[in-house]
Amino acid sequence: MKEYNTAQIARDKKYMQICLELAKKGIGKVSPNPMVGCVIVKNNKIVGQGYHRYFGGAHAEIEALRRAKNKSKNATMYINLEPCVHWGKTPPCVPEIIKAGIKKVVIATKDPNPLVNGKGIRQLKVAGVKCKVETLEEEAKELNRAYIKFITKKMPYVILKSAMTLDGKIATSTGESKWITSKEARDYVHRLRSSIDAILVGVNTVLKDNPSLSIHGKGKNPKRIIIDPQLHIPLNAKIFNSTVETILITTKNIERKTNFYKKKKIRILSLPSKNGKIDFQQIMSKLAKMNIASVLIEGGGETNAYALEAGVVDEVMFFIAPKIIGGKNASTPVEGKGIVNINRAVKIKELKVHRYGRDILLCGHLG
Amino acid sequence: MKEYNTAQIARDKKYMQICLELAKKGIGKVSPNPMVGCVIVKNNKIVGQGYHRYFGGAHAEIEALRRAKNKSKNATMYINLEPCVHWGKTPPCVPEIIKAGIKKVVIATKDPNPLVNGKGIRQLKVAGVKCKVETLEEEAKELNRAYIKFITKKMPYVILKSAMTLDGKIATSTGESKWITSKEARDYVHRLRSSIDAILVGVNTVLKDNPSLSIHGKGKNPKRIIIDPQLHIPLNAKIFNSTVETILITTKNIERKTNFYKKKKIRILSLPSKNGKIDFQQIMSKLAKMNIASVLIEGGGETNAYALEAGVVDEVMFFIAPKIIGGKNASTPVEGKGIVNINRAVKIKELKVHRYGRDILLCGHLG
Repeated sequence: MKEYNTAQIARDKKYMQICLELAKKGIGKVSPNPMVGCVIVKNNKIVGQGYHRYFGGAHAEIEALRRAKNKSKNATMYINLEPCVHWGKTPPCVPEIIKAGIKKVVIATKDPNPLVNGKGIRQLKVAGVKCKVETLEEEAKELNRAYIKFITKKMPYVILKSAMTLDGKIATSTGESKWITSKEARDYVHRLRSSIDAILVGVNTVLKDNPSLSIHGKGKNPKRIIIDPQLHIPLNAKIFNSTVETILITTKNIERKTNFYKKKKIRILSLPSKNGKIDFQQIMSKLAKMNIASVLIEGGGETNAYALEAGVVDEVMFFIAPKIIGGKNASTPVEGKGIVNINRAVKIKELKVHRYGRDILLCGHLG
Repeated sequence: MKEYNTAQIARDKKYMQICLELAKKGIGKVSPNPMVGCVIVKNNKIVGQGYHRYFGGAHAEIEALRRAKNKSKNATMYINLEPCVHWGKTPPCVPEIIKAGIKKVVIATKDPNPLVNGKGIRQLKVAGVKCKVETLEEEAKELNRAYIKFITKKMPYVILKSAMTLDGKIATSTGESKWITSKEARDYVHRLRSSIDAILVGVNTVLKDNPSLSIHGKGKNPKRIIIDPQLHIPLNAKIFNSTVETILITTKNIERKTNFYKKKKIRILSLPSKNGKIDFQQIMSKLAKMNIASVLIEGGGETNAYALEAGVVDEVMFFIAPKIIGGKNASTPVEGKGIVNINRAVKIKELKVHRYGRDILLCGHLG
């Protein structure tokens, strides 16, 4: 154990951090595969590195080994996920690592995929390759949280995103909800969208805001999912203007409009309903079968409330704008309906953030 | 100007910071006077210090001079507010400073009181005392923001405080709104209450939550103000159980119950109404005349909305609990009514805070 002194632990973290940064380059491109980065180190110098670039492409380990060439011999490999032992779109990585003469593999976290799940580490050890697991494990799990849920639960990882004013209102009927937050916040949402597999909204959001749900050329367009039990969506909705893959979830028979949807390449998912609602667990399970590993819910209050109630949400993101709308009829991010004029909002100069226990205090002077 | 090199500026800030800390000891005790702290420094050593301890008590400068005794001669005085030149509850300070032989006075900010407003500095200069203004001026103005508004606008400084869940809901009808936030947040609110002159609520909060609006022995009890246009408050309300000064604002003639209110030392403020509402500007103006320089509005959604609409609010404080209530009928911090069960709330593990432009992003995993 002498080898793992403080300096070595710090070095391991440093190289693993580089793996995580490399892995992130695959964001939005490798799903439902995990994001993986790999660094090969010899005599404290990086001799090869790689990352999983796109779904079906070479694994990070293989890319790094190709770069390192014969320098792999007796080198240490850093990788944020346990190397695979099974044939997927590409051959397994473990035999290649052994063949290349890697002496030690430092792994952030085991691959929870039932096809791997410790087998990679075992095979490496049997072949005499040293293994060290759990370096920056928390960060690695956070990075691949969508993959981990998808591979273990066969359900997509679901983020619910909303934006509200300081007094908990979202605008709806006027479509002004789009302008609650600042350009910086909207830019962030575009980046977020390009990192996930699908955006999901309820038909009411389409009817009220008529969004295109695209990311305006700022990366990959995620699939679009609209829940529309009664098929109220108008055929001239903006969402039908582009060729981004779209899935319409309904209870209805769409025989009459089949041609339109076919031409627009809209995929129809017909599901049974109960009390006029389609079970969210069932929706997510169907989406998982379509290899959708992550979903961003950007619904109105009703869709948000229903998703939370159904227990399908893993993570929430609430943007809070330094404005107070007031007014009886404004909607809230989860449930509630109404009309509101964002220009009438009271502005707060600069929100300051404090923490008291588990609570957050947002305060500011009136502008 | 050679004297004001970087080291001297740093020293000035250091001593002014001590003044501000001293001044803060008067929090909740000196209103409607400002909080003032004073330090006398000679050869880089503090030879005397003081602060304004209570309304009507000695000013900070006088206390510091008493402590410094003959060491004041040729010393530098630091003080966070311009010394006074007028007779108030105590004699003016400037003549005493001159008499003590102070050589230089470093002041954070001018006293906006029309009776002072630069006259203190002029008189000091005329007497040959050097003056330097604007050291930590922003901090000094923030500390005495209530005093500054009160003395210049003849209106109290108004803070609107609310607590809500992450989805912008406050509980009302069940009275559970009291338990939305954590103990740490509630403790902070108690400290906040003891720092201001009066708490204001609408009668609906009394009817629904029946609060005592006291601070449970954690400092000075502020006055309590209830807006009750139609005099719906029940005589057995908890608010009447203690002898903390209470002001009931109504449109009604209280002849029948005069004896009860007299016995309970409840002050009745009878004001005209318009469309069933009492003008908030008028209320605040009346409160200012009663020497109430700061008001904390802890109303329900309706009172909050009305105060914001009337433009009497200077500052807002919104506590956000890491919970999502959902449900159609939950209230929002500004307007909205309904019943909600806080125990049904979805809990968020740990809220993380990010900033995007002027907006705040709160996000977290579901617990």
